[in-house]
Amino acid sequence: MGKEDFGKYKEIYRENLLRHVLPFWEKHSIDNENGGFFTCLGVDGSVYDTDKFVWLQCRQVWMFAKLYSEVEANSKWLDIAIHGADFLQKYGRSESGRWYFSLDKKGSPLVQPYNIFSDCFASMAFGQLGKITGKAEYNAIATQTFYKILDAQDNPKGKYEKTYPSTRDLQNLSLPMILSNLVMELDHILDAKVVDEQLNSVKDKILSYFYKPEHGLIMENVGIDGGFSDTFQGRLINPGHGLETLWFLMDIAERQNDKELIQKCTDAVVSTLEYGWDSEYGGLFYFMDLRGNPPEQLEWSNKLWWPHIEAMIACAKGFYFTGNIRCWEWLVKLHSYTWGHFVDEDHGEWFGYLSREGKITHHMKGGKWKGCFHVPRGVLYLWELMAKLETNRAVQ
Amino acid sequence: MGKEDFGKYKEIYRENLLRHVLPFWEKHSIDNENGGFFTCLGVDGSVYDTDKFVWLQCRQVWMFAKLYSEVEANSKWLDIAIHGADFLQKYGRSESGRWYFSLDKKGSPLVQPYNIFSDCFASMAFGQLGKITGKAEYNAIATQTFYKILDAQDNPKGKYEKTYPSTRDLQNLSLPMILSNLVMELDHILDAKVVDEQLNSVKDKILSYFYKPEHGLIMENVGIDGGFSDTFQGRLINPGHGLETLWFLMDIAERQNDKELIQKCTDAVVSTLEYGWDSEYGGLFYFMDLRGNPPEQLEWSNKLWWPHIEAMIACAKGFYFTGNIRCWEWLVKLHSYTWGHFVDEDHGEWFGYLSREGKITHHMKGGKWKGCFHVPRGVLYLWELMAKLETNRAVQ
Repeated sequence: MGKEDFGKYKEIYRENLLRHVLPFWEKHSIDNENGGFFTCLGVDGSVYDTDKFVWLQCRQVWMFAKLYSEVEANSKWLDIAIHGADFLQKYGRSESGRWYFSLDKKGSPLVQPYNIFSDCFASMAFGQLGKITGKAEYNAIATQTFYKILDAQDNPKGKYEKTYPSTRDLQNLSLPMILSNLVMELDHILDAKVVDEQLNSVKDKILSYFYKPEHGLIMENVGIDGGFSDTFQGRLINPGHGLETLWFLMDIAERQNDKELIQKCTDAVVSTLEYGWDSEYGGLFYFMDLRGNPPEQLEWSNKLWWPHIEAMIACAKGFYFTGNIRCWEWLVKLHSYTWGHFVDEDHGEWFGYLSREGKITHHMKGGKWKGCFHVPRGVLYLWELMAKLETNRAVQ
Repeated sequence: MGKEDFGKYKEIYRENLLRHVLPFWEKHSIDNENGGFFTCLGVDGSVYDTDKFVWLQCRQVWMFAKLYSEVEANSKWLDIAIHGADFLQKYGRSESGRWYFSLDKKGSPLVQPYNIFSDCFASMAFGQLGKITGKAEYNAIATQTFYKILDAQDNPKGKYEKTYPSTRDLQNLSLPMILSNLVMELDHILDAKVVDEQLNSVKDKILSYFYKPEHGLIMENVGIDGGFSDTFQGRLINPGHGLETLWFLMDIAERQNDKELIQKCTDAVVSTLEYGWDSEYGGLFYFMDLRGNPPEQLEWSNKLWWPHIEAMIACAKGFYFTGNIRCWEWLVKLHSYTWGHFVDEDHGEWFGYLSREGKITHHMKGGKWKGCFHVPRGVLYLWELMAKLETNRAVQ
């Protein structure tokens, strides 16, 4: 591959973002009556459910603030971000300062703040909005929420935790994984010492406990000492989650100029893709069992949009940093699968859910878990990475 | 159809139960070292996970006690039921008297008693074991647990309930549905007045609130007044769950000699099957949205074993009670799909999970949610119903 390829892909990602993805959300998701965003959107953008899921409200605020910061200072994007933030400020938090999981269309709480990732995405959203507006109010919400996350990190589910203590204590990847990204996002408001401490802490945790060099894979759940647990949770592999974690780690490695870590992550990207790819029908499995047992998740073999776009970012970063040709080859393969199955240039956005064989199972563009986030973030980062490759990297 | 058909199917069900299903569980599921049952069993019965899920431990106890009571007083079956009950008595309950959700292989608690159906199946298991042994100890456990269920029924999840109160209060089908069966199972130990009150209460609840005559369907969640809620939960239809509910109601109708209810249930069996059947690939959908939107469940279009066997029981009962020919036609169609896709006469038991297109997605016979219950109960009841048809019903 060479400069021409980088330029070609750059155009594809730029065009997908600006012509097919953002217009979809700009046109269909804004609730002008009640505030906030609709995310349950049909194939053509029609609203089929009006509930508001705090993860997705926050992620859309973050996304439009990020676009304003990275692509252009377009006041339309700023307005959309502030539109979502207003709704979240009014209705999103309980008295405890923790963020509800979901609200009805008018903002009345539906599901209690049981899920710490609502807080993570709220902190990320208000942090980015604070960064582009300079408003202390937004930065304060981001910081307060961040410290609530740190306070809760040893028992993130609080009273909703159903695990009986001490029989089988496991640690889960998700929170250190999200923190590895969130701390970078809050760089401008957190004390530099806190940022360094947190980044080193989550990096060490992921590498020492969750990453298993003998498999080249990241586990979802491990023992408190990092040991393998031969249980449903302990055997669980989520290739897309592992790949997203790996590019978060590459961002930390870039910041810390840790070339060894970049190399390790790049190798793990390749081994995770080799492991997670469905050689029969193509695409990445959603869940797998390290021992090859049937996973408990009924949807284990379905193909979801987000593992594929996160995989593409991981490949592009791995290739950009190291020139590893296998990363480029995987990127091309993933691009081909993704553009052949998920992308919908007729109505905008991407489909999200396919059967193992690659047939669409959910004829919609957004729902309870799919909003304005993975696709636009992914094509934005891919566009940026292709532009950097075009400028910086000579033909291999 | 006529006597010959009833005799033919009777033989098929009897043989499946006695030759292909029970031997599988007898041979592979008993944990002779630690007590209780393994349920995570591969295609050939090999144990791939050793955790013990209280729902499934209880259901297997109930099943073997029921066989002892209904088929023959085989001491091997009694021993198996007692083997499971011993383990549950030792390890199954927390100090509160509520039943844990899961235990490790030695019986240490893994997941707290958050799920009232663990209690329902425990009460059912010990009730049946009390019935066949006459042991007061078993009956006492069943009764105590039953009254704990009634005490908890207005807030079954207790502190684990994540729904924010009052924004959107819904009632869920599952508990009245299970109670409609459990109360009948505990007939021998509950006060006759309690039985009548409870049966009338759950029957009225299901018919007035959950059953929607305009659709001929049973909803999973409705408003407190029974009203339709245009939300993910409110639009949810689970055809297999509805069909199982309908044959539970037919049992109540038989007991109360309520012919109008039998007719209503039989008609609803047919309309639920017409609604839930996948005309493209065959089989019953797992979840559907009343408005035809994409359901939130990723596995909505998968074909699971239990809705099919419960549907067959509902058809056989509907036909037995009313002679409705459409029930018979549906039974034949379901039988053909089921025997063509789920039944495994080579290794015993049934496969449980298929893709929409009918391909096996989970190469196993048991797991976290599939144990020794729906299949043996189903083929036992079908055998009994065919025998009754053979004896009682002249050629239609």
